[in-house]
Amino acid sequence: MQPEPVERLVAAFSRLPGVGPKTAQRLAYHVLVRPEAEARALAAALVDVKEKVGECHRCFNLAELGQLCGVCQDSNRDESIICVVERPGDLLPMERTHEFRGSYHVLGGALSPIDGVGPQDIRLDELYRRITTAMATGAAVKEVVVATNPTTSGEVTALQIAADIGQIDHEIVVSRLASGLPVGADLEHADEVTLGRALTGRRRL
Amino acid sequence: MQPEPVERLVAAFSRLPGVGPKTAQRLAYHVLVRPEAEARALAAALVDVKEKVGECHRCFNLAELGQLCGVCQDSNRDESIICVVERPGDLLPMERTHEFRGSYHVLGGALSPIDGVGPQDIRLDELYRRITTAMATGAAVKEVVVATNPTTSGEVTALQIAADIGQIDHEIVVSRLASGLPVGADLEHADEVTLGRALTGRRRL
Repeated sequence: MQPEPVERLVAAFSRLPGVGPKTAQRLAYHVLVRPEAEARALAAALVDVKEKVGECHRCFNLAELGQLCGVCQDSNRDESIICVVERPGDLLPMERTHEFRGSYHVLGGALSPIDGVGPQDIRLDELYRRITTAMATGAAVKEVVVATNPTTSGEVTALQIAADIGQIDHEIVVSRLASGLPVGADLEHADEVTLGRALTGRRRL
Repeated sequence: MQPEPVERLVAAFSRLPGVGPKTAQRLAYHVLVRPEAEARALAAALVDVKEKVGECHRCFNLAELGQLCGVCQDSNRDESIICVVERPGDLLPMERTHEFRGSYHVLGGALSPIDGVGPQDIRLDELYRRITTAMATGAAVKEVVVATNPTTSGEVTALQIAADIGQIDHEIVVSRLASGLPVGADLEHADEVTLGRALTGRRRL
């Protein structure tokens, strides 16, 4: 009953997470009544983000193509402490705590044998190479803060990292965000006070 | 701390209704991890809907540019009964009832003197012209169902339409959607205005 382009927009909106058919319909009507420039801005941003954004070749955070990410570009960040997170989306809540001034390493996931995610599927080797390279150049890493999600696979990943880094250099402290985060929750949706508390109380593995 | 294209996408998503900063961020990450084709499909649909969709020149429902809308194109619809709604978005719920097989007229709003919306700002004249044209060609309109919202401005608009059509031809029935308790609702939780309306409009069983 609707023009085909409207149906197509509703379908495209429906594919976004948390957007059901009714919300998609409402969003489509919103676009129809708002100035064309707004629709074009969103359309351009969608294309741009896919064309211009890639991974930082150092820490695998989001970065403009061919560039280091914002954190790696910042010379005020402490390179001797690396915070390991699962996803790029986990960096923002960490940054919002204003309690961490080190650098990051984005794994791109967590170990989950049940889902067939093994050590070769996430960026563990890249992390260890980064640590050994730093050692070789005299800029040793002092601490690795494992900030994977407080879920089973996040914990498994943390223990694996602690074991592996112990093999590389047992002087490197491997710590874990303190409990304070509700178990089973998502780092991405944590409020900054809880996350800041967890950061302060991190414990050695 | 995020690449500029990501920030721009988050900002563009935030402009959609009901999308706050956190949801916008989540949508942006979703776009980043999903295939490029999905982002392009949404981008193209956004541009298309602004370029290819306009108003049906007969009833002002949404229609592909230069064409009649789906309802006006359908020869099985009863042209002698016109349902008047405020917005194109009000057609879909009407259609979903499967109880209405007449045609529509989209006003594009409702009378609201307090907001400076007068009879010239909505498509009342177009409705009356449509009725007189139909009369002149021997395809007289028998009933106008006023389905404006059950709000003050919707009621004011309904009364205005009833008065105006009475002047054109007092044989045309002007009706109004029944107001009352929503199906499945609880008498205990009904507000007194709705309940009063349900009482006034009670029907003999």
